[in-house]
Amino acid sequence: MATLAFTKGHGTGNDFVILADPDGALELSDAQIAALCDRHVGIGADGLLRVVRSSAIPEGADAASAGAEWFMDYRNADGSKAEMCGNGTRVFARYLADAGLASLDAGLRIGTRAGVKTITRAENGFEVDLGLWRAEDGDVLVRARGLGVARPGQGIDVGNPHVVVALAGEAELEGLDLSVQPVLEPQPAAGANVEFVVPAEPLVQAGTGVLRMRVFERGVGETLSCGTGVAASALAVRHWAGAAAPDRWTVDVPGGRLGVRVVAQADGEHVLLSGPATLVFSGQVTLAD
Amino acid sequence: MATLAFTKGHGTGNDFVILADPDGALELSDAQIAALCDRHVGIGADGLLRVVRSSAIPEGADAASAGAEWFMDYRNADGSKAEMCGNGTRVFARYLADAGLASLDAGLRIGTRAGVKTITRAENGFEVDLGLWRAEDGDVLVRARGLGVARPGQGIDVGNPHVVVALAGEAELEGLDLSVQPVLEPQPAAGANVEFVVPAEPLVQAGTGVLRMRVFERGVGETLSCGTGVAASALAVRHWAGAAAPDRWTVDVPGGRLGVRVVAQADGEHVLLSGPATLVFSGQVTLAD
Repeated sequence: MATLAFTKGHGTGNDFVILADPDGALELSDAQIAALCDRHVGIGADGLLRVVRSSAIPEGADAASAGAEWFMDYRNADGSKAEMCGNGTRVFARYLADAGLASLDAGLRIGTRAGVKTITRAENGFEVDLGLWRAEDGDVLVRARGLGVARPGQGIDVGNPHVVVALAGEAELEGLDLSVQPVLEPQPAAGANVEFVVPAEPLVQAGTGVLRMRVFERGVGETLSCGTGVAASALAVRHWAGAAAPDRWTVDVPGGRLGVRVVAQADGEHVLLSGPATLVFSGQVTLAD
Repeated sequence: MATLAFTKGHGTGNDFVILADPDGALELSDAQIAALCDRHVGIGADGLLRVVRSSAIPEGADAASAGAEWFMDYRNADGSKAEMCGNGTRVFARYLADAGLASLDAGLRIGTRAGVKTITRAENGFEVDLGLWRAEDGDVLVRARGLGVARPGQGIDVGNPHVVVALAGEAELEGLDLSVQPVLEPQPAAGANVEFVVPAEPLVQAGTGVLRMRVFERGVGETLSCGTGVAASALAVRHWAGAAAPDRWTVDVPGGRLGVRVVAQADGEHVLLSGPATLVFSGQVTLAD
């Protein structure tokens, strides 16, 4: 039994237990992480962010070489490793900045299992460059409880796979029952997160595209917010809207409001996600063996 | 903005934010309590236990006269006041004992809005005397998703109202969909918690009645555990079983195992609930205005 200091934070309701472990001394089993993330008998969270120096863990070697001092060891609530978490990167950056462990003034580079990501301060909080994106060829048919008939979905890859479905309006979005997993046809081998979006009327307001979204995350269920899903939603609607579509988007999710920008860079179009990050409380927890 | 020290605890998965406020100095709005109990952007809990001296709040006057030093100001997750919470009393007692604020050696009397309750140490944790109970006359018909036809339910009052339904077996209990509120006919004016129980085979093992239960709490939904519902379930099955039924019961709920005893006292039959109480972590949270 060890006592651990922790911090709890969230970005648009996507919430995390944050453990500072600069020297990589902490060995947590999947069961211990699941116990910490349990919402009734533990601290409760969608996932865990271990804050570790890139040089202190084998997975961080490339990030360390690339000058990213800190590595975000992101774990799902069941303890399994995940590559990336868009909302998590903002909370991770907020934690480093508030703890005085890093500065964001010149852009903070952090290591993740999906490569080094750069985070900067933004008007609405923090912005992370999610990197290159890609629209998939061919529609996927999506069936969901509350939708009368199957709808065509657009596959979007932003490092992880998404399928985005446009709905007719707010009433249809409210009527969706996402307590049941939507069915995809054909079913992608690795599964996909499914986003349901409703464009605003008008779609573009003061040069910014505006939409609402609900999301079903693979292996999780409906969540208040999915950062990469927000990016995928804006990218899909922009893709459908064609050449005149804006590069700036505002996406409202059940947990709050996020921003998306598409920026041309040397290696292609990058998608950037911005939004708030909040540290809610800190404490001490006793870790079961 | 004030910073508050808190502790988080649970009894069989029924979880609480505990705030020590001995002098009754803390004024929390419903919105502040709801924010603290929010599972994504707050600490997260089924309810809040304010630990206040009975002499320090008007509602505690009777308890103070009756020699109960501490009053359990129980609030639901939406901030509304509740009379009692069976699992909460054990966590409350555990907190007082661990903090050195009270001893349980001679039985700890605490004030609640449902009167003074006495808590003692038990083999499985702590035991609280819930007081007198009563079986209601006449059946209530219960319809629930996953049950083919309506079933008769037994009304049980243990300070708050319950309707208990016996199911045929484990498969039926597992098949219940309690994401939808069961419908009662006639509908009790103040509503009721609904318990679905499956007696073990054999029902009585080493002199103890054994059963499994799932519960739908009015205004909340399905929960991992409801203390008074556990007591009501044992009382209903004992009522059905007739004169030969035992006075000791073990009830398994999704969040763990609880004990129930029926004890004859001068004013009638009392029902006592026993089980574990765990303090999980403590911390500091910033309270929004």
